[in-house]
Amino acid sequence: MNAPDSFSQLLARTREPFPASAKSFITGSRPDLRVPVRDIRLTNGEVVSVYDTSGPYTDPAATIDVRRGLQSVRGAWIEERGDSEVYEGRKPVALDDGQRSEDAARLAALRLEAAALQRQPRRAKAGANVTQMHYARRGIVTPEMEYVALRENGRREWMAQYLQDAAREKRLAGNPLGASIPQVITPEFVRDEVARGRAIIPANINHPEVEPMAIGRNFLVKINANIGNSAVTSSIEEEVEKLVWAIRWGADNVMDLSTGKNIHTTRDWIVRNSPVPIGTVPIYQALEKVGGIAEDLTWEIFRDTLVEQAEQGVDYFTIHAGVRLAYIHLTAARRTGIVSRGGSIMAKWCMAHHKESFLYEHFEDICDIMKQYDVAFSLGDGLRPGCASDANDEAQFAELHTLGELTQVAWKHDVQTMIEGPGHVPMHMIQANMTEQLKTCHEAPFYTLGPLTIDIAPGYDHIASAIGAAMIGWMGTAMLCYVTPKEHLGLPDRDDVKQGIIAYKIAAHAADVAKGHPGARARDDALSQARFDFRWQDQFNLGLDPETAQEYHDETLPKDAAKVAHFCSMCGPKFCSMKITQEVREFAQQGLQEKAAEFNRAGGELYVPIHPVRG
Amino acid sequence: MNAPDSFSQLLARTREPFPASAKSFITGSRPDLRVPVRDIRLTNGEVVSVYDTSGPYTDPAATIDVRRGLQSVRGAWIEERGDSEVYEGRKPVALDDGQRSEDAARLAALRLEAAALQRQPRRAKAGANVTQMHYARRGIVTPEMEYVALRENGRREWMAQYLQDAAREKRLAGNPLGASIPQVITPEFVRDEVARGRAIIPANINHPEVEPMAIGRNFLVKINANIGNSAVTSSIEEEVEKLVWAIRWGADNVMDLSTGKNIHTTRDWIVRNSPVPIGTVPIYQALEKVGGIAEDLTWEIFRDTLVEQAEQGVDYFTIHAGVRLAYIHLTAARRTGIVSRGGSIMAKWCMAHHKESFLYEHFEDICDIMKQYDVAFSLGDGLRPGCASDANDEAQFAELHTLGELTQVAWKHDVQTMIEGPGHVPMHMIQANMTEQLKTCHEAPFYTLGPLTIDIAPGYDHIASAIGAAMIGWMGTAMLCYVTPKEHLGLPDRDDVKQGIIAYKIAAHAADVAKGHPGARARDDALSQARFDFRWQDQFNLGLDPETAQEYHDETLPKDAAKVAHFCSMCGPKFCSMKITQEVREFAQQGLQEKAAEFNRAGGELYVPIHPVRG
Repeated sequence: MNAPDSFSQLLARTREPFPASAKSFITGSRPDLRVPVRDIRLTNGEVVSVYDTSGPYTDPAATIDVRRGLQSVRGAWIEERGDSEVYEGRKPVALDDGQRSEDAARLAALRLEAAALQRQPRRAKAGANVTQMHYARRGIVTPEMEYVALRENGRREWMAQYLQDAAREKRLAGNPLGASIPQVITPEFVRDEVARGRAIIPANINHPEVEPMAIGRNFLVKINANIGNSAVTSSIEEEVEKLVWAIRWGADNVMDLSTGKNIHTTRDWIVRNSPVPIGTVPIYQALEKVGGIAEDLTWEIFRDTLVEQAEQGVDYFTIHAGVRLAYIHLTAARRTGIVSRGGSIMAKWCMAHHKESFLYEHFEDICDIMKQYDVAFSLGDGLRPGCASDANDEAQFAELHTLGELTQVAWKHDVQTMIEGPGHVPMHMIQANMTEQLKTCHEAPFYTLGPLTIDIAPGYDHIASAIGAAMIGWMGTAMLCYVTPKEHLGLPDRDDVKQGIIAYKIAAHAADVAKGHPGARARDDALSQARFDFRWQDQFNLGLDPETAQEYHDETLPKDAAKVAHFCSMCGPKFCSMKITQEVREFAQQGLQEKAAEFNRAGGELYVPIHPVRG
Repeated sequence: MNAPDSFSQLLARTREPFPASAKSFITGSRPDLRVPVRDIRLTNGEVVSVYDTSGPYTDPAATIDVRRGLQSVRGAWIEERGDSEVYEGRKPVALDDGQRSEDAARLAALRLEAAALQRQPRRAKAGANVTQMHYARRGIVTPEMEYVALRENGRREWMAQYLQDAAREKRLAGNPLGASIPQVITPEFVRDEVARGRAIIPANINHPEVEPMAIGRNFLVKINANIGNSAVTSSIEEEVEKLVWAIRWGADNVMDLSTGKNIHTTRDWIVRNSPVPIGTVPIYQALEKVGGIAEDLTWEIFRDTLVEQAEQGVDYFTIHAGVRLAYIHLTAARRTGIVSRGGSIMAKWCMAHHKESFLYEHFEDICDIMKQYDVAFSLGDGLRPGCASDANDEAQFAELHTLGELTQVAWKHDVQTMIEGPGHVPMHMIQANMTEQLKTCHEAPFYTLGPLTIDIAPGYDHIASAIGAAMIGWMGTAMLCYVTPKEHLGLPDRDDVKQGIIAYKIAAHAADVAKGHPGARARDDALSQARFDFRWQDQFNLGLDPETAQEYHDETLPKDAAKVAHFCSMCGPKFCSMKITQEVREFAQQGLQEKAAEFNRAGGELYVPIHPVRG
């Protein structure tokens, strides 16, 4: 069996819709504005509709050919705006795939396949600015903004009952900690958030396949999954399948962190097949072009790489422009120094030349490129702490301050910007990160890696970091970069990617519930109701991972009858507290009627006055 | 292969010491006061010594025969006090193993084996009170208290360097949120904490095998693992092996929640083989004695069960005495009603008889039993919320208030007491639980189940709840009851128990680090230092699960050479940020000397003033 065949088979399995689920669409103000949701049909006739990141892959009606790439979603919108044009583009060169070459025949074959994917690149017409921020600031509500609004709201109909509960009981409202989340997200609200820089919609005009989404503290908390090949392992086929796998489980964004061979060609495959925004760290590819010698990097090579990737359709670039020469010595006394790859490359460059970072020096030139394609900045935290004892130190906050300065430079060019954050931060030091970021970076979206709350959990860092991620998400972080169980140890495989994503969906959802995002808790309520009603199948299907839930249940009670049984293996048939509760409830209703008077006399004085509870 | 043989083999594997680890002892003021620690020998010659819950099982020098039970640790201390005596004890009856009987021959065989384990029961002499709280309040520092002090401190020698760092940099101090953790725990401090009810040392005089430990907000955060057979699955052999397995991975306490067959005999096996305190929910066994019919429960049957279990050596009882008749109707409008098994049994009893709970009515009688054996109360939260939308409601807080009243009754009898807490609580509602508990229950230790922060993660509830557990642990919860991936779905198997424990060790350690428990972060620092130095083996061995860490690393880089390689599979040999950092550091040191003047001129004005950071 050759690789493409085995890949197709794997992909076919990955494309299966979730149990009892069907993709449907919310149509906007124009017929080509169709926002996907996943409708979960419950056994009691209810339909619960959830946010869907999986793209056309889970739509049985969609024809997928990874060798041709996905259908365009936004092509017409981009074209209609009339401010961009197709052009010849940069000439590809052999070095684009790095110095570490694949054997020539194989690389040629891979490139031939990638060639079928090519779209003619597009960029802003001379003097034009095609960023969503630029439109927003001129008062234009783009289809992308409307798409985002519909997507954030989802189908409110099914949530109505749960939303009423929340409105009735103050106890059930969230605590947004400074976020301003409206009951219903309007396209105008999206525009306003993008205009003021509090949200971004990563959507390169060369990535028309993307299903627009927003990253901002007044929207649902998003998660990012990293994939990418490496010098040591993995293949292009594996990487594309990882993308599809990652968005199946809920990744809102994917970063391609490839550092090894075939780096350009890998990216072609990923972008053309991705319905979610793709981010990269362009310095990785630039370094491949100079044979891995940081000192040999130049602005020209870097600049050329930015154009190359912008033409391919990358939606955001991590740029470590805050790693300034003057900050490097601040890391010398750290326990783990500089742990960001991009940060350490730039630090080495700065030290070797004893010059200010070319990323910082050329930041406005970079903005000029970004705005021609609508690539967003993800301003990299090259000096983030790599362990608990380096957290919140002078180096980290010096860089953050610079990122705040650069945010204002980017905004001058109407370039969308988010800010990367740590890393390794004990729980009691997390709030300071958020507070400092909000203040220093003018509410530009924060995008943190975890943070990991402890260092002693190698093999379980997805858990150690989900704790920090949930907390900082609640405090205002807009997107959480996942951590897999393999963090610090090796490259994640398929299952690790899934484990990392599920842990981060939990963190993001916990944050949404705590913030009181309208409708977030409605899914919890629907699941808990199913649990109480012994609708086992609904309980599985409403969860983040129906297959695993069902599998775990079936390990001890595999029979089909147990799916409707009013007990589970934990307590057995006689001992189920939920079953007893239902009896108590019936009892209470009868009993209360009969005994109402008695209760009032005897029990009335037993009631304990409850002090009002915050939150 | 018969079951005992396969069990012995499994146990032999479970008994293997952790890699590079050896058990050693800190000796106290008397030669029989020997506190175990696990010394991890690093490849650089350092020794890192960590808290050890695994008992004699990981000591190759110890002879273990599960059919005879463990050696006594505290026997002499108990005897020397001269306030208790051996007595004949309650006569065992067939019903002790429940109505659902095993086939007679097998039960007889099991009982015969259990008979070899029996210790003659001991209780307080007439009028005496043998609780640690009673001693503490009379100013007596018991060997148990000294043991706890030594255990909490651990070997401070190896931490000295890390503790100095923390003392130097204010940034590295924790935020105890109201806890008062001294730099060094003295036996007198332990006495004082126990005397004022802020900590308990669960240590039934009939459990002399126990290695004393403390539960209190000014000590390390502890975790509890639940095991137990069930009507549907599992066997005694499995359950005892689960105990050894659970303490191997770090369970500080184990609750035996058996509800099925052979309930008395199972407990004999567990207690006699447990170096950690064992808790139970006596109402479960009482219910077995009345054939599972809650209405048929009586105070007499319950009382007899308490004596039975106290004689066996159970260290704490969960008693749901706060489920009062008047509160039951408060649960009728809940989404998931009453989810505590004990709570629902008592609710049913109260409703059926329309009478106040016999647990509440007989609370002082229960205290009289507890103090004769030093069984601690774990006042059960029978009305805890079973889903996010029931969190922090009137029923929950009404019960908590009653638990506060009962705490004061228990303390009148010098009976050690902790308070159980939820359950399902979204992040923004967690603080209210801790605040209300501290206020209502007079700082008696809080012992929470999670809480789970969301409901939509069946199959991953260990993660959904570790988030809440870490947060509430930081806020002041003294012990965290674990949740396994099988929660809500089925009975945990061996691997689920491990997954649950590791998730909770992470939560507890994250809380210790955030609170600033002296030395807690030292282990993180040692691991991160090993990581930075590319001492891979040390990195694995210092983690919570060395085997998994090494296994994950070896999946991509299996060769032995990779264990000392200055890179890993994530970035490959040329691209390691840690390696680059080390180069930068050397560079910076050279460079800074040469360029000092230049730096001061050119870089001096680039330094960004850092705002002071809280925490």
